[in-house]
Amino acid sequence: MQDYANLDFERADRCGFPEVIYGASKTPEQIVAIAKELLDAHRVVLATRVSERAASIAAEAIPDSHYFARSGILFADRRDVPIAGGSLEEVLECENNARGKVLVCCAGTSDIDIAEEAALTARIMGSKVQMIADIGIAGVHRTLAHVDDLRSAHVVVVVAGMEGALASLVAGLVDVPVIAVPTSVGYGASFNGVAALLSMLNSCAGGVSVVNIDNGFGAGQIAHRINCPPERLA
Amino acid sequence: MQDYANLDFERADRCGFPEVIYGASKTPEQIVAIAKELLDAHRVVLATRVSERAASIAAEAIPDSHYFARSGILFADRRDVPIAGGSLEEVLECENNARGKVLVCCAGTSDIDIAEEAALTARIMGSKVQMIADIGIAGVHRTLAHVDDLRSAHVVVVVAGMEGALASLVAGLVDVPVIAVPTSVGYGASFNGVAALLSMLNSCAGGVSVVNIDNGFGAGQIAHRINCPPERLA
Amino acid sequence: MQDYANLDFERADRCGFPEVIYGASKTPEQIVAIAKELLDAHRVVLATRVSERAASIAAEAIPDSHYFARSGILFADRRDVPIAGGSLEEVLECENNARGKVLVCCAGTSDIDIAEEAALTARIMGSKVQMIADIGIAGVHRTLAHVDDLRSAHVVVVVAGMEGALASLVAGLVDVPVIAVPTSVGYGASFNGVAALLSMLNSCAGGVSVVNIDNGFGAGQIAHRINCPPERLA
Amino acid sequence: MQDYANLDFERADRCGFPEVIYGASKTPEQIVAIAKELLDAHRVVLATRVSERAASIAAEAIPDSHYFARSGILFADRRDVPIAGGSLEEVLECENNARGKVLVCCAGTSDIDIAEEAALTARIMGSKVQMIADIGIAGVHRTLAHVDDLRSAHVVVVVAGMEGALASLVAGLVDVPVIAVPTSVGYGASFNGVAALLSMLNSCAGGVSVVNIDNGFGAGQIAHRINCPPERLA
Amino acid sequence: MQDYANLDFERADRCGFPEVIYGASKTPEQIVAIAKELLDAHRVVLATRVSERAASIAAEAIPDSHYFARSGILFADRRDVPIAGGSLEEVLECENNARGKVLVCCAGTSDIDIAEEAALTARIMGSKVQMIADIGIAGVHRTLAHVDDLRSAHVVVVVAGMEGALASLVAGLVDVPVIAVPTSVGYGASFNGVAALLSMLNSCAGGVSVVNIDNGFGAGQIAHRINCPPERLA
Amino acid sequence: MQDYANLDFERADRCGFPEVIYGASKTPEQIVAIAKELLDAHRVVLATRVSERAASIAAEAIPDSHYFARSGILFADRRDVPIAGGSLEEVLECENNARGKVLVCCAGTSDIDIAEEAALTARIMGSKVQMIADIGIAGVHRTLAHVDDLRSAHVVVVVAGMEGALASLVAGLVDVPVIAVPTSVGYGASFNGVAALLSMLNSCAGGVSVVNIDNGFGAGQIAHRINCPPERLA
Amino acid sequence: MQDYANLDFERADRCGFPEVIYGASKTPEQIVAIAKELLDAHRVVLATRVSERAASIAAEAIPDSHYFARSGILFADRRDVPIAGGSLEEVLECENNARGKVLVCCAGTSDIDIAEEAALTARIMGSKVQMIADIGIAGVHRTLAHVDDLRSAHVVVVVAGMEGALASLVAGLVDVPVIAVPTSVGYGASFNGVAALLSMLNSCAGGVSVVNIDNGFGAGQIAHRINCPPERLA
Amino acid sequence: MQDYANLDFERADRCGFPEVIYGASKTPEQIVAIAKELLDAHRVVLATRVSERAASIAAEAIPDSHYFARSGILFADRRDVPIAGGSLEEVLECENNARGKVLVCCAGTSDIDIAEEAALTARIMGSKVQMIADIGIAGVHRTLAHVDDLRSAHVVVVVAGMEGALASLVAGLVDVPVIAVPTSVGYGASFNGVAALLSMLNSCAGGVSVVNIDNGFGAGQIAHRINCPPERLA
Repeated sequence: MQDYANLDFERADRCGFPEVIYGASKTPEQIVAIAKELLDAHRVVLATRVSERAASIAAEAIPDSHYFARSGILFADRRDVPIAGGSLEEVLECENNARGKVLVCCAGTSDIDIAEEAALTARIMGSKVQMIADIGIAGVHRTLAHVDDLRSAHVVVVVAGMEGALASLVAGLVDVPVIAVPTSVGYGASFNGVAALLSMLNSCAGGVSVVNIDNGFGAGQIAHRINCPPERLA
Repeated sequence: MQDYANLDFERADRCGFPEVIYGASKTPEQIVAIAKELLDAHRVVLATRVSERAASIAAEAIPDSHYFARSGILFADRRDVPIAGGSLEEVLECENNARGKVLVCCAGTSDIDIAEEAALTARIMGSKVQMIADIGIAGVHRTLAHVDDLRSAHVVVVVAGMEGALASLVAGLVDVPVIAVPTSVGYGASFNGVAALLSMLNSCAGGVSVVNIDNGFGAGQIAHRINCPPERLA
Repeated sequence: MQDYANLDFERADRCGFPEVIYGASKTPEQIVAIAKELLDAHRVVLATRVSERAASIAAEAIPDSHYFARSGILFADRRDVPIAGGSLEEVLECENNARGKVLVCCAGTSDIDIAEEAALTARIMGSKVQMIADIGIAGVHRTLAHVDDLRSAHVVVVVAGMEGALASLVAGLVDVPVIAVPTSVGYGASFNGVAALLSMLNSCAGGVSVVNIDNGFGAGQIAHRINCPPERLA
Repeated sequence: MQDYANLDFERADRCGFPEVIYGASKTPEQIVAIAKELLDAHRVVLATRVSERAASIAAEAIPDSHYFARSGILFADRRDVPIAGGSLEEVLECENNARGKVLVCCAGTSDIDIAEEAALTARIMGSKVQMIADIGIAGVHRTLAHVDDLRSAHVVVVVAGMEGALASLVAGLVDVPVIAVPTSVGYGASFNGVAALLSMLNSCAGGVSVVNIDNGFGAGQIAHRINCPPERLA
Repeated sequence: MQDYANLDFERADRCGFPEVIYGASKTPEQIVAIAKELLDAHRVVLATRVSERAASIAAEAIPDSHYFARSGILFADRRDVPIAGGSLEEVLECENNARGKVLVCCAGTSDIDIAEEAALTARIMGSKVQMIADIGIAGVHRTLAHVDDLRSAHVVVVVAGMEGALASLVAGLVDVPVIAVPTSVGYGASFNGVAALLSMLNSCAGGVSVVNIDNGFGAGQIAHRINCPPERLA
Repeated sequence: MQDYANLDFERADRCGFPEVIYGASKTPEQIVAIAKELLDAHRVVLATRVSERAASIAAEAIPDSHYFARSGILFADRRDVPIAGGSLEEVLECENNARGKVLVCCAGTSDIDIAEEAALTARIMGSKVQMIADIGIAGVHRTLAHVDDLRSAHVVVVVAGMEGALASLVAGLVDVPVIAVPTSVGYGASFNGVAALLSMLNSCAGGVSVVNIDNGFGAGQIAHRINCPPERLA
Repeated sequence: MQDYANLDFERADRCGFPEVIYGASKTPEQIVAIAKELLDAHRVVLATRVSERAASIAAEAIPDSHYFARSGILFADRRDVPIAGGSLEEVLECENNARGKVLVCCAGTSDIDIAEEAALTARIMGSKVQMIADIGIAGVHRTLAHVDDLRSAHVVVVVAGMEGALASLVAGLVDVPVIAVPTSVGYGASFNGVAALLSMLNSCAGGVSVVNIDNGFGAGQIAHRINCPPERLA
Repeated sequence: MQDYANLDFERADRCGFPEVIYGASKTPEQIVAIAKELLDAHRVVLATRVSERAASIAAEAIPDSHYFARSGILFADRRDVPIAGGSLEEVLECENNARGKVLVCCAGTSDIDIAEEAALTARIMGSKVQMIADIGIAGVHRTLAHVDDLRSAHVVVVVAGMEGALASLVAGLVDVPVIAVPTSVGYGASFNGVAALLSMLNSCAGGVSVVNIDNGFGAGQIAHRINCPPERLA
């Protein structure tokens, strides 16, 4: 194939899902070429941080690809029970035979892009996913109103910028793992997400682990692994 | 007086309370000598970050001085209605004719030293003070149980280490100013209080301002200024 | 309402003023839609960090909205005694029955945008506000010339970039709370406001608390809370 | 009870395990007093970062407590099928009816303290635990020799200092969640664990989430939550 | 010559290769003028971080110059056995009488620009160079498949962003010097290459030294010095 | 005058030169208006960090103003013996009756902008100035060739980016004060000048003091104060 | 001489004063051996950061050495008009034929150690020195009371910790060079002097240059060079 | 063997020298036990950062071990042509049949510990080593006096703290690789070696690569690999 990439076709066997394309530092042409190879090999392909321009080129080369501009997620699904695309709600609510559920919540309107990246990743990998937006700690009653939802999930992903306190609040309310995603939302001494990252790493509530700033994809992937363990371990 | 100090005897007039002695980088002898001069001039003296050794030397030189080992506060009061000393509870509960109240709360047992520094400072300067310990966000019901207390104060001081999320939680529940004090409680990526400091600076809830890490004194002083405005402005 | 927001209509009761719109990471359409809902519910709406483009869209949707380009403040006021808009001077000087006064001062010409954000926030929330510009420490006589103004206020907001020393200077001259706002004015080792932030957190003068870099809004809000305590506490 | 603590006896119901005592900033007397209360209420108590001196005081007050000096873990277990204490091997290998397994591995001999903290935490909370030491990336064959072990676990905890690369290596070999624990092992530009922390947050291999530097406890807790979901979700 | 530069024509004698032009902060006109002087004096000239616009101006002024857009390398070679230009493959594979070999490998597709800068630098200075792309640690079998290549070189340059773990992995497999180049590939807590830089500085595997973030040129130069010692030392 | 500025007309008496306009965060209109006021009051005006657009507006409003695009310096001089403008060389070499000399040297071609800012500042304030470019430490013979020049000055300004080592080298060769200016020239771990700043602050050679990154103006001003002490002290 | 040192006996000619011993990382034996060699060669020797233990060993080996415990300065003077030792006041006030004066002032009592280091350094090198303590910005009238002293000096050294604002205040009052010395006095977000360092580097008042944190020696040396230019330049 | 270590006996074959013991975070007993195993297997063992207490325990268990207290190096050599121990000079000068030479130089007396660590490491691994102390940039003539030595080596190790400028100076004088070792010598803004590290990473002179702060061992190892390439590559 290309001289710039060395695809890892064994990753699906080794790690449970094929290699995912990190679109941020690739040209549209590289993204499309790699996507086609992976789609041929695995019948599903997922790419993150895809620009609108790359997505429109992909739309021609892979007509059954779906793109979510807010989160930069591009995917195509030719598996036996494919996800048909549509709005975020349609994708999250289409039929799914996973046993557990991933709950993705976010603190503010500005964190929705990253929350969507997490939700779509977990959904495309095979999990059921519920998403709840804008329940940040400035109005704690909004969070408490969702305690039953929170406790019905096998794993909760909390997406928050600024001081990232929602992760601690949620972790104090549940007995399942919490994956915290700091976002770069904020200004000044938020230092592009560092404040939220440190806050989450120092959560006084147990059961929280953290991924990189704005790494909705990583949170979605680990949440899916928690929610749907490999069959050999069942 | 001494060659190493240049006391600011006009500070009481200018700023509402006499110069306060910062004990951390002074010798016991320096602390005692300055304390005596200030006590003579103003009939009250307050020193912070006083070591046990300095306090015992002060106890001889100024027999009516009081010392709180946990917070390092040393004071002597010869004003018309003096604070008589005793336990923290006795000091906070002795008669006081201030109109409003400062509420000092802290997130964990480990933050009590700094909370005590804030509470004693505001009390010695003239405010009524209530203190509530260990109501951190890992058990949000503990915080919610004190909403009426929180809303009965003219200003709330929130003392918290680790991720410092209690400041945002409290600020979302009250309509008075919140003074947040990050503490150095924690380890690793708490960076000696930096995580809590950044968290508090980025609070998504309004009405929060912040003082230096472990600066209970500063929080107590500004809380008192809010609680008891100068008489000329009444 | 929208799926991206979960408005907190109880905030006015809980925290004294309705939810304020943080415009920095929202689309113009989101800002306008949320503003209309809040205005209907509370008869007043305030938005910060609003771009000129969002403001012009708002001007059509909410014809009685007012916009201040320098500070990015947008508001509309349909309360019983509304603020009629106009220049900053007109807004600050229109009739106001608050008892105390917020004084906002800034160090240099470059800090005016943030000072205006603080002043307008406190004014719209209900305080009397006076503003004094360009009295930085390089010419200390300029600051000293305003000592009477400084001491006539219930709370002083100090806005300064570079080394942020004005906060310490002012705090040494007054006996009321000082809210310090570091700004990102400067270059090189100012690190976008970090130098001023650290300077203010370490003020050797008492009575200073600090908000996030460039957070004029936060300073205005806390200053208003100090200046106009809730009626139930009177 | 004590005035310095406000125990959260509902935490077992809410979060799956009783409140755990963070021993680092408490006096031996505080640790013992809190431990006795929790043990009475829940029949099991766990404390972390307990000093040798505190442990010897606890040994008198709670004769059936067990202490692991290397990791600072103290526990007492009066549940129906208690852990009897003994060496780390004895604790890990005593009978256990959990279905899945937590695998804890570490990169070097110096990381064992933190790995033991993680392993004991997960074991005391109820998981089966296997531990493998000193398989760092400088000799990749040592890691590869354990691939079958790695793939037999429901979750892998990777403990590593210096450059922390073992997390990425392991994550590339498994399809289950990887919880990475950076340690403060190293010198110079390791910045007390920051290098490992950043390395783990930026892992190019998927499925990795991270806890605070030296937070073996947190990793053990979240690993247990992944390994043993709450029964209501089964 | 120009008043803005003070060329160091003795550098070839002193340091083994003429002065190299750092194009990043020079105008196209400055680059071309300096390049012509150096080419006249030394019959070879190398410039790094050359923009496309500067390269097109150079193409007119120095028609036998060659430009590689991906890495920003510009060179012209009028030595006795010149490098004729062409694709990267052609340049690396043209005749070369050096005895040893520099191997340049990189972790991901996104690191190729910097790898090419290293490879071309070493090649133009006189070394044989082999380049292997996309063998990062997420799929360790890809690295292990190249062990023979790695062990056939006199020095290995490892180029990697994100967590930069490839450097440690390679260093554990070879007995020759490893020059590690962190790249700015990544986001969030990669801090523009700082995570990779720290990771490489803390490598637990021996034999690794590090150059600045994105400094492919520096790595190529030092690799060449290792690979081709000065003749006087033979 | 304007409401946004509060000019300090006494600064010339107090500090030896009128207030200087910091152009970076002012509009062209503000710069011109302030410049005209200062020029009327003092017969000389200096502005730094002036954009080309602001300079062209100033050229119309103040026809005898001079602008240096490379360094962003704008000035107008109507003193008794005015500087007539022209090229940098012409300005530096025009008649001057100062007794001592400021020597400004820089490490590389890329540092010239800042060196020019320093040189023009000192010259306009009244000093004799000599400037030497591109004598960085990579070719130490270039520095040593100027030892006599260095030792003929009353003060040396050293401008350098990257590792900033020229300051130490020069300071080891002279017995007069050295003012070091770190520049933001560099990439990666230069952190926009922080590497040079730290290097200069830690100089092992005596007699070095440092100004902010890229602060050629500040260096020129302090160099002039050293070179031309106030007459009252003669 | 010793194998661990390579004394630079030409430094007095080249840089105006003999090599000064940096005592912080040398053994007492090394300090004494080097001191004796330098004293023999130059008739004066100065050592900084000398521990009490090293000083007592030196007192035996060099009976005419003088030691100042507060600042760690050790010196011996066998020049024609030697400094006889005694208290700081005696040293500063003994006869001196320098023409200008260095004024050293500090913000607080805690900064006196570093101020003394600066004052003694400048005095031993040959300058007249005046020292004023505890005139920090919290009481600006204390600073203003010394304006005449400040303006009578050829150079002012300002020593301050915490927010370091005294440097800006003084620089706004004088027309001579100001050398600012940040100290590590403070806690929390002072970061051991970083807050003061950044504050001083960003001074909005002109004429300030800065030395390393706690580098009283460096400030004294550069102040002396400014105050007493080399005779060849007279 | 022990449960805490998993020795890598193949490292000698794979990487050219047996596993080296990092003594900093191991107990004396662990060091001795591992040392004996490695010595039995390879006939040579090297340990770094060994405390005096661990060395005295080793002296009993391994009577032919040698210890250098200044650098913390411990080794035993039972190879065919063993290093007999003795002073640093004796070790460096004993017979050696390597073809090339490693030159280790350091800037100041305080850097000697780390320089010795580098020199002994390279020597024990098999290289010829020359060491030159105290040739820092404050007296550039001291460096220039050793140009012939510098140019006679196959690789130069430069050890320097504070501003670390010696690396750039040396790199500008030679045509062989320079390995730079920043040391933690310094105070204040040296940040325990960070200033020197950044300085070296940003060297404007070519051919410099860098190891971790105080990592003399790493520099010695890579220098040896450069100086003595594996025989299979000859």
